[in-house]
Amino acid sequence: MSGRLYGVGLGPGDPELVTLKAARLIGAARVIAYPTLAGAESFARRIAAGLIAPDVREIVMDVPMVVERGPAQAAYDAGAEAIAEALAAGEDVVCLCEGDPFFYGSFMYLFARLEGRFAVEIVPGVTSVSASSARARLPLVARNERLEVIPGPLPEAEMAARIAAADSVAIMKVGRHLAKIRAVLAGLGLEGRAVYVERATLPEEVVVPLCDAPETAPYFSMILVRKGNDPWL
Amino acid sequence: MSGRLYGVGLGPGDPELVTLKAARLIGAARVIAYPTLAGAESFARRIAAGLIAPDVREIVMDVPMVVERGPAQAAYDAGAEAIAEALAAGEDVVCLCEGDPFFYGSFMYLFARLEGRFAVEIVPGVTSVSASSARARLPLVARNERLEVIPGPLPEAEMAARIAAADSVAIMKVGRHLAKIRAVLAGLGLEGRAVYVERATLPEEVVVPLCDAPETAPYFSMILVRKGNDPWL
Repeated sequence: MSGRLYGVGLGPGDPELVTLKAARLIGAARVIAYPTLAGAESFARRIAAGLIAPDVREIVMDVPMVVERGPAQAAYDAGAEAIAEALAAGEDVVCLCEGDPFFYGSFMYLFARLEGRFAVEIVPGVTSVSASSARARLPLVARNERLEVIPGPLPEAEMAARIAAADSVAIMKVGRHLAKIRAVLAGLGLEGRAVYVERATLPEEVVVPLCDAPETAPYFSMILVRKGNDPWL
Repeated sequence: MSGRLYGVGLGPGDPELVTLKAARLIGAARVIAYPTLAGAESFARRIAAGLIAPDVREIVMDVPMVVERGPAQAAYDAGAEAIAEALAAGEDVVCLCEGDPFFYGSFMYLFARLEGRFAVEIVPGVTSVSASSARARLPLVARNERLEVIPGPLPEAEMAARIAAADSVAIMKVGRHLAKIRAVLAGLGLEGRAVYVERATLPEEVVVPLCDAPETAPYFSMILVRKGNDPWL
């Protein structure tokens, strides 16, 4: 009988923001899997480190950081086959996923390759959006408000239109798009309402008004904008 | 010295989707607080029930279900004052919040009343959007996709425009707006891509294609639409 694949969300970074279910599955796992980016430390593995039993087998997918999709696809192809072998041999495999597996998570690449062939269960996790909102002390949405989640690479005009139309906005993957995002928000008169959050819930966390944000932002950074004048009161 | 107020997200319903931090705080709490709707059982308390120590003091805010905001505001005013008394007496208070406290959560009403007067910490939780996506086996957003989170009560034309412009949509608080939402999605040719999710991760969970959804939907139901043709591959 084949094993089961678990795509396990680990939350935003604080190991205490892992769910009880994720902690149980990781603690019992004999085979874990996770991607690394160009040989760097796996953020997901770092979050889960205290939960992983000794002598666990680790399937590491090293994903090259290049613009073309082919090399990354090949890495996920190879990783999916290594996972499939373990599953076919009757072993469960716990795939470690930072944040939530289906919210900008790389687990969906494995899901697309293995769903249908094996039993797959997705364990949701706390997203970086929820974590950033909590750490920024900025309620995201109340009542009948609308939340827009957009990625930093969005073209300037589209980004402006989307921010203009929403009640609250989470701009993900800020990275090298910080200057553009600043300009968009300034153009909309919203710069004073924007909060910059970097590595929420980790010891190296940064939470500042956008005007105090550093000049260069890492990939794991976010800008939150809430337009409402306390309509939740 | 005053106590600290914790707004603790409990996730979508499965008690195992509570975070380790929430479980620790609830287990150690001597005073908990939570709202009930018109005397009904508290969903948040039900999720946390197995973690609550005996002899805990419970501050219950009974919120009337009426259209006017005044009576609900009065209930939160009174609840905030009861919580403030406990905090001023040096007790910590753990406020139980279904889902995530700052994502359509009633905790923001208490936060608005007590922030500044007392130390407040927000502990994020797994949202019903992440849980529904996991249970529907429907990845939400990948790469540079945009996610729109909208409430069911949105007027029909605005709802249609927002769904038309997004890559993925989560329509919250479906309830009595189900027929309107069906019509909007049919008009956009998206009915076949929509999934209906009710009480995700609870024993009474329902996950079906929208065409198989029941005629009447409870408040805690959601419709997810993903337009992409597997762009995550």
